[in-house]
Amino acid sequence: MKLTILIHCPDQSGIISSVTHFIHGEKGNIIYLDQHVDKEAGVFFMRLESDFENHIELSVFKTQFEERLANKYDMHWDIYKDGTKPKMAIFVSKYNHCLYDLLSRHNSGELLVDIPFIASNHDDLRYIADQFQIPYFHIPVSKETKAIAEEKQLDLLKEHQVDFIVLARYMQILSPKVIDVFPQKIINIHHSFLPAFAGAKPYHAAFERGVKIIGATSHYVTAELDAGPIIEQDVTTVSHSHSIKDFIAKGRDLEKIVLSRAVQLHVARKTIVYNNKTVIFS
Amino acid sequence: MKLTILIHCPDQSGIISSVTHFIHGEKGNIIYLDQHVDKEAGVFFMRLESDFENHIELSVFKTQFEERLANKYDMHWDIYKDGTKPKMAIFVSKYNHCLYDLLSRHNSGELLVDIPFIASNHDDLRYIADQFQIPYFHIPVSKETKAIAEEKQLDLLKEHQVDFIVLARYMQILSPKVIDVFPQKIINIHHSFLPAFAGAKPYHAAFERGVKIIGATSHYVTAELDAGPIIEQDVTTVSHSHSIKDFIAKGRDLEKIVLSRAVQLHVARKTIVYNNKTVIFS
Amino acid sequence: MKLTILIHCPDQSGIISSVTHFIHGEKGNIIYLDQHVDKEAGVFFMRLESDFENHIELSVFKTQFEERLANKYDMHWDIYKDGTKPKMAIFVSKYNHCLYDLLSRHNSGELLVDIPFIASNHDDLRYIADQFQIPYFHIPVSKETKAIAEEKQLDLLKEHQVDFIVLARYMQILSPKVIDVFPQKIINIHHSFLPAFAGAKPYHAAFERGVKIIGATSHYVTAELDAGPIIEQDVTTVSHSHSIKDFIAKGRDLEKIVLSRAVQLHVARKTIVYNNKTVIFS
Amino acid sequence: MKLTILIHCPDQSGIISSVTHFIHGEKGNIIYLDQHVDKEAGVFFMRLESDFENHIELSVFKTQFEERLANKYDMHWDIYKDGTKPKMAIFVSKYNHCLYDLLSRHNSGELLVDIPFIASNHDDLRYIADQFQIPYFHIPVSKETKAIAEEKQLDLLKEHQVDFIVLARYMQILSPKVIDVFPQKIINIHHSFLPAFAGAKPYHAAFERGVKIIGATSHYVTAELDAGPIIEQDVTTVSHSHSIKDFIAKGRDLEKIVLSRAVQLHVARKTIVYNNKTVIFS
Repeated sequence: MKLTILIHCPDQSGIISSVTHFIHGEKGNIIYLDQHVDKEAGVFFMRLESDFENHIELSVFKTQFEERLANKYDMHWDIYKDGTKPKMAIFVSKYNHCLYDLLSRHNSGELLVDIPFIASNHDDLRYIADQFQIPYFHIPVSKETKAIAEEKQLDLLKEHQVDFIVLARYMQILSPKVIDVFPQKIINIHHSFLPAFAGAKPYHAAFERGVKIIGATSHYVTAELDAGPIIEQDVTTVSHSHSIKDFIAKGRDLEKIVLSRAVQLHVARKTIVYNNKTVIFS
Repeated sequence: MKLTILIHCPDQSGIISSVTHFIHGEKGNIIYLDQHVDKEAGVFFMRLESDFENHIELSVFKTQFEERLANKYDMHWDIYKDGTKPKMAIFVSKYNHCLYDLLSRHNSGELLVDIPFIASNHDDLRYIADQFQIPYFHIPVSKETKAIAEEKQLDLLKEHQVDFIVLARYMQILSPKVIDVFPQKIINIHHSFLPAFAGAKPYHAAFERGVKIIGATSHYVTAELDAGPIIEQDVTTVSHSHSIKDFIAKGRDLEKIVLSRAVQLHVARKTIVYNNKTVIFS
Repeated sequence: MKLTILIHCPDQSGIISSVTHFIHGEKGNIIYLDQHVDKEAGVFFMRLESDFENHIELSVFKTQFEERLANKYDMHWDIYKDGTKPKMAIFVSKYNHCLYDLLSRHNSGELLVDIPFIASNHDDLRYIADQFQIPYFHIPVSKETKAIAEEKQLDLLKEHQVDFIVLARYMQILSPKVIDVFPQKIINIHHSFLPAFAGAKPYHAAFERGVKIIGATSHYVTAELDAGPIIEQDVTTVSHSHSIKDFIAKGRDLEKIVLSRAVQLHVARKTIVYNNKTVIFS
Repeated sequence: MKLTILIHCPDQSGIISSVTHFIHGEKGNIIYLDQHVDKEAGVFFMRLESDFENHIELSVFKTQFEERLANKYDMHWDIYKDGTKPKMAIFVSKYNHCLYDLLSRHNSGELLVDIPFIASNHDDLRYIADQFQIPYFHIPVSKETKAIAEEKQLDLLKEHQVDFIVLARYMQILSPKVIDVFPQKIINIHHSFLPAFAGAKPYHAAFERGVKIIGATSHYVTAELDAGPIIEQDVTTVSHSHSIKDFIAKGRDLEKIVLSRAVQLHVARKTIVYNNKTVIFS
């Protein structure tokens, strides 16, 4: 059995020694350990993977962990058992490249999640859901219907016990009503190199500014638009010879790759959020 | 003899044909031609290099060019004779990496300019000027003395017939009094991926925001701070494990390379500015 | 009507002037012109796009072009009328990521080709062809059956009037019998940064060598394995912490993006092959 | 006092726990720990930095470490006390860009080493040594004099108690007589993306092959030419429009940055060599 443990707590001497000693005592073999100290904030972060030869009763392990370590060091912690697939809902609007990319990775066994449904404010991409045989819910959103739409979304998310949401170019802003239920569990892809060009039409703004590089940014969604903790970014070069249409075409490839990397990091439990920033373990 | 011709004018049919016909008629062999049309602005840009077997009287050539082409097409144009080294002044403050990089390229014959002097608001880097035997002028700048300091700078620039200025991490903002004398002739390096993190302390701001990529931007200086036409940008990856000090160290390498590339493009007459953007020919 | 003209011929004075003069005389408006001179080989390359307001009889235009320009300058040339979709066959084996990527781009209208069929030496990916409703031909290949298999492939290619072939991780080596029928018309993706790690199992070899960067290369197929003219390359960083499995996963994203870029360049008539190298127009 | 500990040993359960327990027992506060397991080779690697509030007698600490940990786990280990500057010799030939870069970093306090001397088979770069006031030894090397020249080099290296050597574009091949005295202590910069284009004239070979990306590789020198453990690599894009001269110019920037990064990693004790590959800690 393999466990992945994520910890963050006030930095102090002896944490690594205590945790590794505990794991060792439980007959665990540490196969990965990475830690980070944010010296300014005085916070210690650790990710640890451990193999256990013998069967471990997870609830007992967690209780022991809490009593002997977490309480002592005032830890925030999560322990994940290997092999449990998280449930990932996908929200889309009309752009299909990120959706195609996620679904083909899922179909190939590259992306180890369950996808209970795709939700969209438009019906345009239903044909892709059909191609991949994933349920598709068309929930139109207008100023007037937004509250009702979000109720429907929340109902669906609850009903399907969704663990996290991927906004695969979902062109609507979620209200805190949804965000608060999924803190650090909604992953968005923004089509710019944040914090440059937050908000609408970033490729137009980048073109207007005459930049020589464009980017894409995947981040956890928070109440403030495009200001959540950044998970992954990447860029590509452009020149005066590229039109806005070219920016959009080049950007599509960035967006789908960056979003996919962020989703994979989240699924592999390699992200910890602190102070609106992420620690991304290798 | 080799001439480099830069043109921009309202887009219309027949310009390339007319220009190449003209060159051909003057017994020129076109060894490079690149053109660009900004469709939104309706502007045509061209850069052309031509070898002439016979001696060409440059003033006669220019008059012919003006009468037979420039007037007809309403061109902005420049014609440069190969082999003339522009005069480049360097302004610095206390950071030495960009200065070292420019001077060592100059010393190696890699950067084909004359450097009549280095000016600085501090005396710290005089030792480098001495190493490379370039005159160094210490012109302190404070709120009170800024006007006088800029007078001194302008006097020096005029006296040495400076063609363009490189701000190699010069930590002062130039007033329009200087900028207006050198339109599109002052090259700055800003230590961020503009337009993100304009202004002071961009590495601190980038660290605070938790970005995964940092950058550097070289641009022509205009009245608005860090908002001039971008010549060159580059980026490098960072992670949670990097401190602000690490950002600064990684950034130094970006800054010096990006600034040097921009200077080389300018010296090679490969830049045209239009609508606060650059066309950069290959 | 828009025409794209590709030319290469021995370099000499006056070509650009003559060609643009010709276009101008035919009432064409040049909207793109890029040229390149390979000084060592003494070869001139040009790509030109021109709009014609009036109807142009293409066959007449071509005859005129040949008589007045091509013969004079000893040109190799191609003239393409805008809006004709080339027919692209896809060959695959068992890896699906490149296939998924090409088909989803095609389905989105991003890749402007017709795909008459997919051929494979295995039946594994038929389900993807079914998802996208493209005919799928399973043509097993063994040492004994290779000659027969290639006959079948050639029959299919001929029957469907295929213009070019994309080897989307097709794990078989094509014999000259096929290659010679499609010179510079078979695009392969090799999963290394060529010329490093040509041949089989490049990720294993890269891992063994301890490189810090891996790559992917798309090239035209020639008789010599992995030695054809390179169209596009890209790379990504790796470290000691990545296993071969990680290399393969990271490489998948490179492969599909690099292959797609190469296919788009080919489809947009932006490639000219000369001396086993490519000129790639912007 | 701060210690940096580097370890590699056969992988087994309990190492991290034992080491961190030991450090904790010595009243050390672990401020950095990174580990890696090469699963194929069955080898465990660790880098650890620890602050000690009280004075530590280093020789006693090392003895304790050896007796209580190293012997038990069959460790290869090194313990470095912070603040000791290694002695770095630089070997050059005629290219100056890497030399300028190293010396200007050294002069800025960016590169924390002592540079007892520069040695060269030519006298060309003496002026740079003079600029930076570093002793310069001209030791000509020809087929006939190579053995004598290497004797002189070894004498100098010994006399100045040199810790490691940087070949900053030194265009001579060192014989095992020198290499064996400095195992994993000679850092070379090769001007290609190894293993592509090993040996002489890699830019010419890259141009000939028509690659779209060129690179530079810094590695530890071993008996086999350009085949030692890779420390750092980086790349930049090129196109058909670049001549060999352009490759060389673009490559210079790569070479100096990549070499500098490798040297910094070595100086920071962030490299471990195993099986002709490197583990590079972050």
